[in-house]
Amino acid sequence: MAPIRRIYPFAQGKSDGDKSMKELLGGKGANLCEMAKCGLAVPPGFSITTEVCQEFHALGGKLPEELLAEIKTAVAGVEADMGLKFGDPKAPLLFSVRSGAAVSMPGMMDTVLNLGLNDTIVEGFAAARGERFAMDCYRRLLQMFGDVVLGIPHEEFESKLTGLKAARGVQYDVQLTADDLRQLVKEYKEVYKHNNLELPQDPWEQMYLGVTAVFKSWNIPRAIKYREINKITGLKGTAVNVQTMVFGNYGDTSGTGVCFTRNPANGDRELFGEFLINAQGEDVVAGIRTPMPIKLMNDVMPPIYAELVANTTMLEKHMKDMQDVEFTVQEGRLFMLQCRNGKRTGTAALRIALDLEAEGLITMDEAVCMVEPRHLDQLLHPQFEDEKKYAKDVLTRGLAASPGAAVGRLVFSAEEAEEWKARGERVVLCRHETSPEDVGGMHVSEGIVTARGGMTSHAAVVARGWGKPCVCGCEALQIDLKNKTLTIEVAGKDVVLKEGDWVSLNGTTGEVIKGQQGLKKAEVTGGDLGKLMAWVDKTRHLRVLTNCDTPEDALVARQNGAQGIGLCRTEHMFFATPERIAAVRRMIAEEELDSSHKLEALEDLKKFQREDFEGIFRAMDGLPVTIRLLDPPLHEFLPQEGPAMVALCKQLALELKTTVERVEGRLNGLREVNPMMGLRGCRLGIVHPEITEMQATAIFEAAVEAQKKGAHVHPHIMVPLVATTEEMDHQLAIVRNAATAVQAKAGVKINYKVGTMIEVPRAALQAGKLAERAEFFSFGTNDLTQMTFGISRDDAQAKFLSHYTRSGILVSDPFDTLDQVGVGEMVKIAVERGRAVKPDLELGICGEHGGDPASIAFFHKVGLDYVSCSPLRVPIARLAAAQAQIKNRK
Amino acid sequence: MAPIRRIYPFAQGKSDGDKSMKELLGGKGANLCEMAKCGLAVPPGFSITTEVCQEFHALGGKLPEELLAEIKTAVAGVEADMGLKFGDPKAPLLFSVRSGAAVSMPGMMDTVLNLGLNDTIVEGFAAARGERFAMDCYRRLLQMFGDVVLGIPHEEFESKLTGLKAARGVQYDVQLTADDLRQLVKEYKEVYKHNNLELPQDPWEQMYLGVTAVFKSWNIPRAIKYREINKITGLKGTAVNVQTMVFGNYGDTSGTGVCFTRNPANGDRELFGEFLINAQGEDVVAGIRTPMPIKLMNDVMPPIYAELVANTTMLEKHMKDMQDVEFTVQEGRLFMLQCRNGKRTGTAALRIALDLEAEGLITMDEAVCMVEPRHLDQLLHPQFEDEKKYAKDVLTRGLAASPGAAVGRLVFSAEEAEEWKARGERVVLCRHETSPEDVGGMHVSEGIVTARGGMTSHAAVVARGWGKPCVCGCEALQIDLKNKTLTIEVAGKDVVLKEGDWVSLNGTTGEVIKGQQGLKKAEVTGGDLGKLMAWVDKTRHLRVLTNCDTPEDALVARQNGAQGIGLCRTEHMFFATPERIAAVRRMIAEEELDSSHKLEALEDLKKFQREDFEGIFRAMDGLPVTIRLLDPPLHEFLPQEGPAMVALCKQLALELKTTVERVEGRLNGLREVNPMMGLRGCRLGIVHPEITEMQATAIFEAAVEAQKKGAHVHPHIMVPLVATTEEMDHQLAIVRNAATAVQAKAGVKINYKVGTMIEVPRAALQAGKLAERAEFFSFGTNDLTQMTFGISRDDAQAKFLSHYTRSGILVSDPFDTLDQVGVGEMVKIAVERGRAVKPDLELGICGEHGGDPASIAFFHKVGLDYVSCSPLRVPIARLAAAQAQIKNRK
Repeated sequence: MAPIRRIYPFAQGKSDGDKSMKELLGGKGANLCEMAKCGLAVPPGFSITTEVCQEFHALGGKLPEELLAEIKTAVAGVEADMGLKFGDPKAPLLFSVRSGAAVSMPGMMDTVLNLGLNDTIVEGFAAARGERFAMDCYRRLLQMFGDVVLGIPHEEFESKLTGLKAARGVQYDVQLTADDLRQLVKEYKEVYKHNNLELPQDPWEQMYLGVTAVFKSWNIPRAIKYREINKITGLKGTAVNVQTMVFGNYGDTSGTGVCFTRNPANGDRELFGEFLINAQGEDVVAGIRTPMPIKLMNDVMPPIYAELVANTTMLEKHMKDMQDVEFTVQEGRLFMLQCRNGKRTGTAALRIALDLEAEGLITMDEAVCMVEPRHLDQLLHPQFEDEKKYAKDVLTRGLAASPGAAVGRLVFSAEEAEEWKARGERVVLCRHETSPEDVGGMHVSEGIVTARGGMTSHAAVVARGWGKPCVCGCEALQIDLKNKTLTIEVAGKDVVLKEGDWVSLNGTTGEVIKGQQGLKKAEVTGGDLGKLMAWVDKTRHLRVLTNCDTPEDALVARQNGAQGIGLCRTEHMFFATPERIAAVRRMIAEEELDSSHKLEALEDLKKFQREDFEGIFRAMDGLPVTIRLLDPPLHEFLPQEGPAMVALCKQLALELKTTVERVEGRLNGLREVNPMMGLRGCRLGIVHPEITEMQATAIFEAAVEAQKKGAHVHPHIMVPLVATTEEMDHQLAIVRNAATAVQAKAGVKINYKVGTMIEVPRAALQAGKLAERAEFFSFGTNDLTQMTFGISRDDAQAKFLSHYTRSGILVSDPFDTLDQVGVGEMVKIAVERGRAVKPDLELGICGEHGGDPASIAFFHKVGLDYVSCSPLRVPIARLAAAQAQIKNRK
Repeated sequence: MAPIRRIYPFAQGKSDGDKSMKELLGGKGANLCEMAKCGLAVPPGFSITTEVCQEFHALGGKLPEELLAEIKTAVAGVEADMGLKFGDPKAPLLFSVRSGAAVSMPGMMDTVLNLGLNDTIVEGFAAARGERFAMDCYRRLLQMFGDVVLGIPHEEFESKLTGLKAARGVQYDVQLTADDLRQLVKEYKEVYKHNNLELPQDPWEQMYLGVTAVFKSWNIPRAIKYREINKITGLKGTAVNVQTMVFGNYGDTSGTGVCFTRNPANGDRELFGEFLINAQGEDVVAGIRTPMPIKLMNDVMPPIYAELVANTTMLEKHMKDMQDVEFTVQEGRLFMLQCRNGKRTGTAALRIALDLEAEGLITMDEAVCMVEPRHLDQLLHPQFEDEKKYAKDVLTRGLAASPGAAVGRLVFSAEEAEEWKARGERVVLCRHETSPEDVGGMHVSEGIVTARGGMTSHAAVVARGWGKPCVCGCEALQIDLKNKTLTIEVAGKDVVLKEGDWVSLNGTTGEVIKGQQGLKKAEVTGGDLGKLMAWVDKTRHLRVLTNCDTPEDALVARQNGAQGIGLCRTEHMFFATPERIAAVRRMIAEEELDSSHKLEALEDLKKFQREDFEGIFRAMDGLPVTIRLLDPPLHEFLPQEGPAMVALCKQLALELKTTVERVEGRLNGLREVNPMMGLRGCRLGIVHPEITEMQATAIFEAAVEAQKKGAHVHPHIMVPLVATTEEMDHQLAIVRNAATAVQAKAGVKINYKVGTMIEVPRAALQAGKLAERAEFFSFGTNDLTQMTFGISRDDAQAKFLSHYTRSGILVSDPFDTLDQVGVGEMVKIAVERGRAVKPDLELGICGEHGGDPASIAFFHKVGLDYVSCSPLRVPIARLAAAQAQIKNRK
């Protein structure tokens, strides 16, 4: 085996790494190498690979022996480039150490700056670069190293800084003098001492401990939580980027900034971002000082701005996507610190994709792939009913950091957000600023509003990533964390909101609005979206049907592009009115098959079902309508045990002219220990063939009626929970008999199909035999997941599934994203065996997974004909299907 | 396609059929052909194949057109043989029509005799054969045809016969004169008329309707029920045997009999059976008249007896098994009507197999296959503790029709037997005689006693088939069905037993005993059984382990030949004492992992488990002991909701120094909607790693202790309900750590293995990956069946499984006999994938199927190393394993 290469150096004009090596070098490292190769001025440095992170954790949290020498060699290379020496007591070379995984995880990983200073070196550095600057660098090193590497609480440093500023009567760090900072360094060292720790005086030890801290941070809880929320799995770990320090805080010819090559909120083609004079990068990202818009840089340092525009324009063309760039200006010289594909809102994603295609930078396929399903999800999110209507309630306006409408009850901490959400409440999280510790609470909130921080602050970046509405830098907010109140001066009067008060946010306009403002559905058609969806539909092979149970929903789904109904759950219709559920209960409670009560109840239900089906057939004129025969255990149609049940039994005893005891006995006899594996699905229709017969008759009579009224009707009747061919034969005979009878009576022909659901492992194995009988298969991946894993969806989440996903036993909840290895193999087996017998067998899926993009990609790959999902997910499924087609083609 | 052949004729010395064609010709038909070919005198006739039965039902209950002509051709052949004509008004050829499926179903199917008579022909027949005889034949035809073919209630004929006998003041049918019988014919015709029916006067119509009735009878409820009880599946249907009538009721030189070539109760080598002079066959089988022992025939008609002995001796040699033969003597001429392998008790089966081997008729392998697992089951059934002790309670003695000891409460009808049994009672069924309608009630009874009927009566034959104790022909019984009493004169005094009184039967001695006599376990070793089991063990490849949880059971299992423990359910030990279950509850109720309460509870449990394991290891010295980590949902350790639960919560709150509300919250939180798919198996050990650690430590500490005391210890630790490799890795790490710690502390090495259960479909699919981690697989086929089918064992039986097996949707309960198609494929997949990765992977099965012979045959075929079953099933599993080996070798 070749020895593994652990380090990839980069410097302006040269590197062995490139942008294709994200898995190995992390996104940041790979792009640093790429920028260096493109000739851009990056501070020289090197990336330590993600494989070393694996080594590190395999060794139980230790750097591999060989790495130390390899780092020394790499440092020597940088020293040669820079003409400076690491640890030189006069003109020291300083390094930053940063994390960088293959997938961007903003703020999740730790960074240490200014490595290479110590008590001696700082004095030489001061002599060369000025005392105030040197001391500022040193106190930053002390603070970050203490916090990140040694675990000293952040607050201990912060309180010293705050105390000093108060003592000096100043507001900003920059107002502190060299002596003040020297004093601060002294106080910081006392913090170390107080914690029985000290800053290693050996620069190499600082370096090794810094690298160690980054690797360690891969597995700290907030990083794990971020990966969990964002479903980031399968990574080796983080790379470490060791890079020469450049200083944005070296006076007024220096500065630092963050910018996007296009507007990440709406996609406009403009350089978009922020810049802070005389500051280091973390000052921008953390949102502590509100920076200036990037365009103003043109006024402050026009040549640098021109260079930045040239660099970013070149980068966007080179990377073929909108770039998110970090840079530093040191003494009038521009250094590019980072570039990556920029996170964006749904609106921006759509616009950028279309524009890049129009500009000839990308193909239509690439444009389709550039809009992520979750972008579309955002576009389809609700908006305010009427922006004029709420005008009188607007409290203030901040930065429109992430668009969309959010309505929720006010909370003031991430923990409270999670608690309220757990109680079923919708919340809006209000903070001075957010930090990585808050991501859990941010994720459960409808929207986020902060008092401080700009368009690239933590809150803004994270919220945009999730497509969650966010208003930032809303300085009028006076937040009282202790009393949990929010005070805003409106027209000279204080408005005070308490925890739990309703508030609305318009992330598109930056408005913060009092009360619970009304929402409306998003517009799905026309404009940019219409154009993209036309491309999508031209591309995809997989059809997209919908799961719906009413004519109204059918129309919505059709507007969203549904190509038919893949799952109509007949039982949902049973709950529609009290009259219906009463008929269902009479049907259930009457034991005698041929009693007049039972026959009447069945007749009533048939009438209701016939009406519903007719409406659905007409709404879906020309498209297939797949109707599942009655599926749930009958006791689901009964109230819980208790007074309601007692009353029902009395009522039914009267209606059915029998004793309360008999009704009770009959109904209690329906309860099961494991209802999920009990008397349900086709088992119901076999034990109670009269139900199947009633339903089949209702379907065909409705089809006749709709057809008479001019609709083209394609009923597909689906037998649920089939495990054996005998079950299928039994139900098939009833359905075909009903079809024959209804058609004969009406004298018309109905073009119908009968198929089976594949939702029990045995059915997947028996797919060959079932295909001899069924005209289509519909995979019920909810149940198939339950049975293949032996996991009940009703219980598992709270009981152990959340523990499983948190601790990495499962990479994701298999009810959200299909478990391709296990459940997926079941699907594959069924597809192969079914098609072997009947090559034109129609195959679809109607479980929840039908709306999940990752699962849709799998279903495309195994060759299904369609997915079926909820009406609102239809556009997302269409996009996912097109992307699967494109990716599979490659 | 060649035209199907529907008919196989036979006559002395010639037939195209033979004994190998049972599936096509039925058992009776195939053996009639075989006897004919061997040159025995069988009444000429023909068999209509079972395929025609399929045709018949496929045509909706109609004979195929072509069959009618084919029957005419076959009848013509018989006419040529016999020199008589069917329908000849002077000397008519008469036929019987009988059913005969591939598997013998005594009394289940219908028979019609004397077809070919009508009002005209009977007069010619009377002229030729005598009026009394002809009229007797005709009234039998009227009665059977009316009952069997036309569905006129049997009783309507019976009451006419009884009325006539009463009017004539006679007791027996034979005492009726020719005129009486002519009168009876007239009255029977009135019965027809009263039912708006008549006997077809066309003999051909009689023939076709007779054949139709036999085919129809294949699907009458009692036939279906018999097949269900006896798990007879996969048959095409019944054949029909149409055969020339011969008459055992043609005076005193005629007669009919049934005999076995060996004693079916104990296996003695002697002609065993019964004979009735001047009677037709059904008189013997129905047990209405008590016949004479077969040996007395030698006194009545010595040459015929000699011929019978010669015929049966030849047949037994030819068939290589004990034969059950029916014959008729007509006017001094012997006709063989039927032969088949005789049903026998377990004792007889064992003896006959060993004897036939000793006589050189069969090989050792054939002897092993001749003893059925259910025979062994009978041999292992309980016997009376002490026959001397109950001597004073003996009420009377009847025929020892089927051996064994039965103790139960007295009932007088099959329906009552089923009702009492459903309430959980053990019953003994007492009847004048039994009939096919009674099989349901007979099956649920511990034993059967009848007042009438001999060793080959319905009760005797059926009971022997099931290995159920039976005493027949117990004439001292005075049964009062109306008042539900049984009166027996004992020593001149009437003893009266009422319904529900306890009674005991000794089917080996024929004793009927008062009261509930004590039972003891059967002897398993020594004698004939020892010899057979030695052959069995020499033959089989599959090892047989046992499922047991205590040192005592382990010893029993070892005596029964268990080669280790395949499943030790640790949770069973938790219920052993109040002290233990209390510790379990404290462990469950305490939320804080490191609270002293929790640690103490765990420590207590560890102590208990260590003691148990040590005992088991020592009992199983030298053999593997497979221990399953905690498996059931924790709420199984709690009482049901209600007062007991309230009390427990109060108690626990005191013990754990917390509030009742918290304990309640915690414990109620454990309840699940579908516990079978909830927090159980390895999920428990992952969410609560402390439990796995406690159990693993207890196992290894016990192993160390047992090893110190000289035992050879082989703990196999089994992780339950694994679905993913991550789960296995998690538990494996805990177990290996515990092993390392215990071994290091004790300074000894324990030879242990860690494996996984395969009981979730996903685990079967992932078997390759799991085999990289596990040292053995144990198939948990109970759960695997639940998940593969999506059927809960807790609910399914009453809710729909019994409906499924009754209506043929399932051929058998998949929890009794492994579903080879579905669940079996899961097993096969896991075996293939596991062995592909680890060729020496040890494979076993520990579900209930481990004791089921049909399932064992499957497990042998797919290459498992062992089955594990309950201690008492071990000998049966050994036998089944040997038989699987032999059958697979062929």
